Order: sequence, then structure tokens, then C-alpha cells
Amino acid sequence: MDYQSIINEIYRDLMFEEDFGQIATYIPELAKVSPNKFGVHLYTHDGFNYSIGDAREKFSIQSISKVFSLSIALSLLGPALWKRVGVEPSGTAFNSIVQLEYERGIPRNPFINPGAIVVADLLVTYLKDTKKEFLEYIRALTGVDTIDYDKDVAKSEQRSGYKNSAHVNMLKSFGNIKNDVEEVLDFYYHQCSLSMTCEELGKAFHKFSDTNSVFSYNGIHLSQSQVKRINAIMLMCGFYDESGEFAFKVGLPGKSGVGGGIVAILPNKYTISVWSPRLNNKGNSYMGVRFLKQFTTRTNQSIF
Amino acid sequence: MDYQSIINEIYRDLMFEEDFGQIATYIPELAKVSPNKFGVHLYTHDGFNYSIGDAREKFSIQSISKVFSLSIALSLLGPALWKRVGVEPSGTAFNSIVQLEYERGIPRNPFINPGAIVVADLLVTYLKDTKKEFLEYIRALTGVDTIDYDKDVAKSEQRSGYKNSAHVNMLKSFGNIKNDVEEVLDFYYHQCSLSMTCEELGKAFHKFSDTNSVFSYNGIHLSQSQVKRINAIMLMCGFYDESGEFAFKVGLPGKSGVGGGIVAILPNKYTISVWSPRLNNKGNSYMGVRFLKQFTTRTNQSIF
Amino acid sequence: MDYQSIINEIYRDLMFEEDFGQIATYIPELAKVSPNKFGVHLYTHDGFNYSIGDAREKFSIQSISKVFSLSIALSLLGPALWKRVGVEPSGTAFNSIVQLEYERGIPRNPFINPGAIVVADLLVTYLKDTKKEFLEYIRALTGVDTIDYDKDVAKSEQRSGYKNSAHVNMLKSFGNIKNDVEEVLDFYYHQCSLSMTCEELGKAFHKFSDTNSVFSYNGIHLSQSQVKRINAIMLMCGFYDESGEFAFKVGLPGKSGVGGGIVAILPNKYTISVWSPRLNNKGNSYMGVRFLKQFTTRTNQSIF
Amino acid sequence: MDYQSIINEIYRDLMFEEDFGQIATYIPELAKVSPNKFGVHLYTHDGFNYSIGDAREKFSIQSISKVFSLSIALSLLGPALWKRVGVEPSGTAFNSIVQLEYERGIPRNPFINPGAIVVADLLVTYLKDTKKEFLEYIRALTGVDTIDYDKDVAKSEQRSGYKNSAHVNMLKSFGNIKNDVEEVLDFYYHQCSLSMTCEELGKAFHKFSDTNSVFSYNGIHLSQSQVKRINAIMLMCGFYDESGEFAFKVGLPGKSGVGGGIVAILPNKYTISVWSPRLNNKGNSYMGVRFLKQFTTRTNQSIF
Repeated sequence: MDYQSIINEIYRDLMFEEDFGQIATYIPELAKVSPNKFGVHLYTHDGFNYSIGDAREKFSIQSISKVFSLSIALSLLGPALWKRVGVEPSGTAFNSIVQLEYERGIPRNPFINPGAIVVADLLVTYLKDTKKEFLEYIRALTGVDTIDYDKDVAKSEQRSGYKNSAHVNMLKSFGNIKNDVEEVLDFYYHQCSLSMTCEELGKAFHKFSDTNSVFSYNGIHLSQSQVKRINAIMLMCGFYDESGEFAFKVGLPGKSGVGGGIVAILPNKYTISVWSPRLNNKGNSYMGVRFLKQFTTRTNQSIF
Repeated sequence: MDYQSIINEIYRDLMFEEDFGQIATYIPELAKVSPNKFGVHLYTHDGFNYSIGDAREKFSIQSISKVFSLSIALSLLGPALWKRVGVEPSGTAFNSIVQLEYERGIPRNPFINPGAIVVADLLVTYLKDTKKEFLEYIRALTGVDTIDYDKDVAKSEQRSGYKNSAHVNMLKSFGNIKNDVEEVLDFYYHQCSLSMTCEELGKAFHKFSDTNSVFSYNGIHLSQSQVKRINAIMLMCGFYDESGEFAFKVGLPGKSGVGGGIVAILPNKYTISVWSPRLNNKGNSYMGVRFLKQFTTRTNQSIF
Repeated sequence: MDYQSIINEIYRDLMFEEDFGQIATYIPELAKVSPNKFGVHLYTHDGFNYSIGDAREKFSIQSISKVFSLSIALSLLGPALWKRVGVEPSGTAFNSIVQLEYERGIPRNPFINPGAIVVADLLVTYLKDTKKEFLEYIRALTGVDTIDYDKDVAKSEQRSGYKNSAHVNMLKSFGNIKNDVEEVLDFYYHQCSLSMTCEELGKAFHKFSDTNSVFSYNGIHLSQSQVKRINAIMLMCGFYDESGEFAFKVGLPGKSGVGGGIVAILPNKYTISVWSPRLNNKGNSYMGVRFLKQFTTRTNQSIF
Repeated sequence: MDYQSIINEIYRDLMFEEDFGQIATYIPELAKVSPNKFGVHLYTHDGFNYSIGDAREKFSIQSISKVFSLSIALSLLGPALWKRVGVEPSGTAFNSIVQLEYERGIPRNPFINPGAIVVADLLVTYLKDTKKEFLEYIRALTGVDTIDYDKDVAKSEQRSGYKNSAHVNMLKSFGNIKNDVEEVLDFYYHQCSLSMTCEELGKAFHKFSDTNSVFSYNGIHLSQSQVKRINAIMLMCGFYDESGEFAFKVGLPGKSGVGGGIVAILPNKYTISVWSPRLNNKGNSYMGVRFLKQFTTRTNQSIF
């Protein structure tokens, strides 16, 4: 299939359309990014790379990082992880605290913020130097040693993160945070502040797109079955309250971040990363979702 | 792959285990079924059939019928359907009326009861003789002319269906039911009362498992893309509040019913039907879910 | 105190102001009433009557009737009543079904619709000819033999009462309705359709304003303590989600109806009835609430 | 009326009954108090004092302090206060964060924790040395200069107050906290840690029981109408999710605290304080509520 032509066509088509959506402003540092950035990168299982636009420019991966932290926690704890966090779609907006209280402190899944904070707490417990080891793992996944936290973004988020402070304290009140709340949030904000390019995300997620091999990087080991399950969680929960819509129209497991990035996977075929900072009303990249819909429609490939 | 051996093995293994779960008692007629029934049927894309146990015995398909009615509504209305019902997982128990009120009468998806009732309302509007045409469609899908409603089950459900009456009236109060509420419920209960075997369900769902051909039966036409989308909705919403768990552990689109049936699909590979009447605490067949977990684990095949 | 002058003054002041609020349109028959009607009637404990405007014109008392049915149920069942319905303010809009589901079919209090429907069910169980006996009781309370149901209003409400149908079916599904749902609703809609004047309501509620005597009318007996408790429920729950505001600004127990009527009580001092059909955004008479605020402020009398 | 005999009788009767309920353990420092403490103090409007048991022993007044802080905020801001906090009963348990999120950061009333925290934030904004001025006000109300914060209790609460931290951060995320969250909580925990006796509470609330005079203490001025409104809020919201029950069975405005104290008012007649540390399942003093029920029944006096 001529992926490059398809990517070029969709990119050009979308360029002529009005770009709707709004850049996230609740993290002041993110609001500085040019809203017109647009990059796409496709990395196939047989080793080919296709890209267009700002595919080699760094951006804040934000919630996409939750896939990385989940993979570490699953490797460290195995099934015991699911006593601390569920695997069901949340059915509500991504920052809702309601469900948390109703379900006595067990977040619905590891991709809503409270769930990701519980996973962060686990990493703080089990890794000696959490920030350092997390970074080494990402560098091992990508082979790119220059990937780093953006401390300005982390600080900016920390200063305005009252909702996350509410979540972590609520979780702590139910006994589902074991470490100091400030320490957990400090790691969580660093994790989210990772700066990566579409290309680098492609390399990293390529490891999760391969469900036929054992996964083993930097001491993190996952069975084939565990890699498949990470894909299942991405499909069910990767796009907040737009997960059903995304499965319905795109048909790929994936994960979005408020920095405007989306990574999606066709297992054992390819990994595709898109970046465009304007968000739709569900908090996912407006152009990113549209691009991927077009892509799976024109290639007629999806998991279904 | 030697499917028959794998099926036999899992069947035997499960037979030695204690059979947990409870038969649904809220529909008195269903409570009469022997709780020890257990049947499995696999129908591959290349035309082979494998079965064991009570695979040729009729049972009440209940909510599995929602896939059939959805396919008709999607054929008749196209994307306009999504103004009346959503495609997001519900995140709550299958009979919750809360979300309905909160979201002003638009059910989250077509597989929770309120969503299926809205779809039933659409069929009452668009089909001349709804019950007759629905039955003809099922017979066309399966090629089995003896498939019929079980009027005792339909009546039994109608007499005890206060929650569904609550739902349909709440929907009507928001203007999302166009016909008389009693007429809609009458069709809905008939649709759910269909008696079919695992084998017959396999034949019917085989049509939805084929995402490479156009779907056209008895005047109902679906594009490849529409068939894929029905699969996506099954994956996201097919198992009530256990959908995430099912995707996580089984990894196949599917649909369950309180009669104890489950049908699951590996697109373009096979359709598998399981029937065992005892239900787990999420309302899905206890043995059915366990069987399918074992099956996708041992065959190492899933959509991920 | 010169009540008549105070009433006249407030009436005149409000006349000069713009009349906000909207007449209830969900009961078509009620929408026919002139929105400019405005009547006030005060009946003191020592037997004096003061009135102005349309105080002798009949209107649909609607939810005000819930006080009458509650008094019968309390007389018949005593404390056993509180196993079927609570006494806590609802904290949500008056037609919310959420709380009902959350609290397993026990309505928060007898003045939200589901609670009043449970009370109606009790009257259907315990009174032989419910509609006839209920009417006789109202006639005994007022001494006015011409008070009657408005069958057009009852029918109109029945035809459009999908939300109440949802409630009664939800209650039935939890086992908190013992009779046929249609029979219960038929009585409930008749009860709400009662046509009375401000003056007649004053006479009826005068009996509940006397907390120093035993209450005994037409076979319905209440102890002093029970009469006080009806007043307590009126104060806590009489104005839907505006109950706190009403206690805060008016400071009297009372009950409103969507027909635009309000009756309020200063125990052992007076009963005051107001009627003005336009409703505020909480479903209570816009002018009625404003009049009563002025009245307790200028007289400097309230229960506090 | 022979109040002392009535108090003695009820006290003796309750002494013979089993003392149910449990002492609050979530504030470790409070768990040290002897659960068998039991004191009652009645202070009449004409200046008589009646007491029994541990009426002169200090205890942690906890949420009773919310009435004091509300009175300051109302004096300082007047009606502008109600833009920051409502006056409706909450209809849910006292630490629920759900409603807060649903209603965009405006707590339902000043007596649920989030509401009291908003009031605390206002005091931090408007008083120069908040802790000092608050204490001076309480000393002025009671005429007792030795009343003070219990710093051990304040610290104990701070260390375990994750739910309050969740609330204050959620409020801050909606912009309804203007000061630093830690500073607000520090004042809030001090306010709640006040140690007072039943007798001292009687003296302080005596000022709120007088609705016929202007209230003016230590620079805090309230009109008669404002004092009445504080009473209305106590009646509607003073006992968390048991407020309706308390109005129903006791019929007095009042406020409870998890230290086991309750103060109730019959306006212009008396103030009654009860202390018994074991709590019922709604978080109010088990014996305190029972005592007050008996008291208003036997005296046949209440606001209704």
C-alpha cells in the first residue's frame, strides 16, 4: 500500500479545511505552542518510515505517557495491579471525581487522571529513583538518549493542578495512595512533561504494536498477552469520553494527550503518530482524530 | 489450528470446575431453564463447524438480539441514527436510568436497555409489520425458517418489566420515543424472546464477522465500514459493565444476553457462540466468559 | 397588626414590577390559565380573613394536595409510613429519578413526585373508594361541598405524564408500589387536579396550622406531634430545590404547586395562601415567593 | 416549666439504655476522649441555667464552629456571601465531593465541609489576623477569656484530612478559593479545634437565639433578619443528611459536631447544649439527638 501518498493526500485535504478546536489553556506553558503545528509519522512493522509536516518537532506528550507508566506497573505487579485500578471505560469526562468517590477510591482505569496517579504512586513505591528510571526506560524504548522532561511544563502544571491535587487527596483518603501526595504528584507531572517527536513516539509504541514477541526493555518485561492487554485498554479507554467514537470511526487502539498528540496502533502492522495542538470538545486533538479517521477509511485497515 | 481439540479441552476443564453464578430470575420464564446447560459452537470463515455440548438446543437470545435490530436501524437511517443514540460505553450497570436523565434522553449506546428501546422505536416507525419483518430478517441471516419468538418468554418479561417501562417513559418524556410506549415495548420484548441455538447464532453473526464484503440480507444493506462499526460497538459496549474486562481478557467483539448466551467474533476468521445460563455478577454468562478467555488464550488469536 | 394594609401595600408594589417567570406548559390544560392572575388570602388563628385580588377564584392546586394525602397516610399508618418514604430534603430537582435508583426505591420525602406517588399507592391500598374518600376529606377540612377534581386537568396530565410513569415503574421495580401502576397514577392525577381557591386552601391548612389541638376530620386523626411533623416536612421539603431559600428568606413551612399556588403557615398564628401562575426557575410561583418574602419581612414574624 | 426535672428525668432514662453509636476515629486525637461522657446545659432567655452531667467539661466543638464563622462572613459580606455558597440542604453525606463538581464549585450550604472551607477562605481574606480575631470573637460571645484552640486536635486533623484537602483543591480549581489552600486549611482546622463546654456554647448561641435584638459583638454586626436566617440555615442544614429527621423529630434549629456536641435553639426561649461523644450512622451524637427528641416531646415546645 502506498502509505506516503495516502498520508500526503489527507494532510493536504485537511490543510484546506478550517482548523477547529482550541489549544489547552489550563496548563499555561502549553498555551505557548503554535496552534498551527501539524505532524504525522507512520512506522510500519517491516521497518519503513513515512512522515509529513512537523513530525520531527518535540511536543509535550502529556497523557500519552500513561501508556509507558502502565507498562512498567504491569511488569512489576502483574495481575495484582488490578486491585488498585480497574480496566473499564469511565463513561464520564476525564477529570471527574464522582466515580472515584462512588467506587471507594478505585479509579475505573489507568488512563483517567486518578488511575494514572495511582499508577504513578506504584512507580514511586517500586522504583528507587523513579524519575531517573522512568526516563531511562523511555530512552531504551526509543533509542534516543536526548529525550527529557520539560521542567517548565512540569512546574506550570504543578502550579495550576488543583484538580489533580483534589484527586490524589481523595485517593489517599481511601487508602489508595501509599506515598506522600506531593512526591506522587511531582513524579506524575514530570512523567506528563516528557518532550518527544512523532517519530520518537512511533519508535516507542512500535514495541507495544508487536503482539507476537516478548517485550523486554531496560528490565521491564511483558508477555505477549500483557502487551495485547495494554492495547485493549488503549482501545477501551484511550480517548476519555470519546473512546467509543474513536473505536467506532478509527478502529485502532491508541492514546491521546492534551498537548495535541495521538499515537495509534494496528497490531503487527504499524504505529501512527499525529500531532496538532488544537483540541476538540472531548480534549483530544481535533485534527489528529480527523486525520486518523481518514487514514483507516482510505487504507481500509483497522482491527475490525 | 485444531479448533475441535482446543474446544474439547477447555470444555472438559471447565466441567471439572465448580459452576458459579446464578441464573437470571427476574424473568420468571427464563428461570425454568436447566442451569447446567452448556453448549459451544465455532464457525470459521472458511466454512468449518466445530461444536460440543448443547450447541443445537434453543435458548432465549435476549440482548444478543440488539445486534440484529441495530443492524436494521443503521441500514435504514445511516448516520442519522447517532442523533438518537450514542456509541460510548456506559460505565454503569445495564439498567441504570441515571445517565439517561443526566444526558437528556440520549442513551449512551444501542446495547444498554434504553438504547435498544430507542432502536426498537425506530424499527416500529420504519418497518410496516415490525415483528414479521424482523423475524424474516433473522431467518434470512441464518437460512433457518423455523426460528421464532417465544411468546411465553415475551409475556413473562412484559409482566415483570417495570424497569424497562420506567426507561421507555423517561425516554418519551425527553421526546426520544416517537411511537406509543406499549407498542415499542411489545416489539422489544418479542425481539428479545427469540429462540435460537448456538449454531444458528453462529450462522447469523457470521455475516457480521465478514468485514471484507458488502452485507445485504432481506433488504438490509450495510457497507463494509458499517459492519466494522457494529463490531466496534460490540467490543466497546457488548458486555455491560464488564466490557472493558472482556476486551482485556478475551479481546473479541461480542454480545451477551441474560439467557446465558454469548456470541463473539474474530473478524474474517471465525464466529464463536457459547451458552451457559448461570450469570456472573455483571449479568454475563459465567461459564461463557471463562470459556472465551481460555479460547483466545490457547489459540493466541484476538483482534489485538 | 394591620395585616390588610400590609397585604395591600405589597400587592400594589409587586403590581408595578415586571412579572417574571413562566407558566408551566408541560400540562397543556394548565397552560390555558391567564398568567396575570394574582390572589392572596390570609386567615388568622383568631378567625379573621384578609384577602386581595383573585383570592376567590379556583385554580389547580397540584402538589399542594400532597400535604392532604400525606396527612391521611400518616393517620392510617403512623411511623410505619417512614419505611416507604423518607423525610430528608431531596437536594435535587423535583423530578429527578437518580436518587430513587441510588436509594433502592425509597423516595427521599413525600413531596417529591416519587414520594407522593408512594403515598398515593398507600391510599389506594387503605381507602375503599380512594377518589371519593379523598374528596370527602378535603370537603370536611374546608366545609366546602363543591370542591371537586378537574377531570380535564387530570386527563391532560395523564396524557403527558411520562416522567411520572417512569417514576411509578421504577418504584414498582423496587417493590415500593403495591397496586397496579395505572390505578395509582389515576388517583395521583386526580388528587393533583383538585380545584380550590386561596380562601378554601386557607381554611384547609388552618387545620394544620393549629399545633395545640388534636386533628380529627372525617375519620383522619393526627396527634399534635404528628401535625407538627407535617409542618416540619413542609419546611424542609415543601419547595423542591428552593426549600432552603424559602426557609431562609420567608421562614415559614409551606407547600407550592405548579398551578402557581403556595400555602404557608405560621403555626398557631395564621395561614396565608397566594396564587400567581408564573413560575420561577425552581418551579415555584414567582410572585408567590416574592410576596411571602415581603410579608414576613414587613410583619417581622416567622418561625425563627 | 420545670426544666431541671425534665432534664434530670430524660438523663436518667437514657442512662439506663444501651449507648449505641461510635466515637469518630478519623481524627486520632478525638478518639482519646472517653465515650461515656454525657453533659447537658439549658440556658433560658430569661437568664436561668439548668445543667447535668459533664456540662462544664471542655470538648472539641468541631463543626459547631461553622455557625460562628458563618456569622462573621455574613456580617462582613452581606448578601454577596451567597454568590460563593448556597443555602440549600445537601441531600447527601457530609463529605461528598460529587455535588461540588456537579455544581461547578459552589457548595450547597455553609455547613457541609466544602461550604465551611469557602467561608474560612473569606475570613482569611477579610480578617487581618484570622485566628486571633476569630478567637477574640468567640471570647466576646461567651465572656470567657480562656477559650482557646486545641492545637493537638488541629494538628491531628490536618495530618489525616485528605478529604478536606481534596475539597479545597477542587474548590480552588473552580476559582472559589482565593487564598493559598494550606493557609485556608490551617485556619479551618484551628476553627474546628476550639475547646468549649456545654455551658460556654450555651452562652455563645444565646446570642443567635435572640431574634428580636440587633447582634453586635466584637465588631460583628447582624440584623435581626440575618440572625433569623442563620437559624433557618441551622434548621435546614445543621445535621448533614439527618437534617430532615432532626427537624421532623426535634423541631429546633441547631448544629452538631463530630466531637459529639449539639447546640439547639428555640428562638427567644432557650438554648440547649448536649455533649456525648458516640455518633450515630449520620455522624451526629447518638445520645445527643435522642436527648433532644425527648426534650421537645416532653416540653411540647418547638418552632412548629
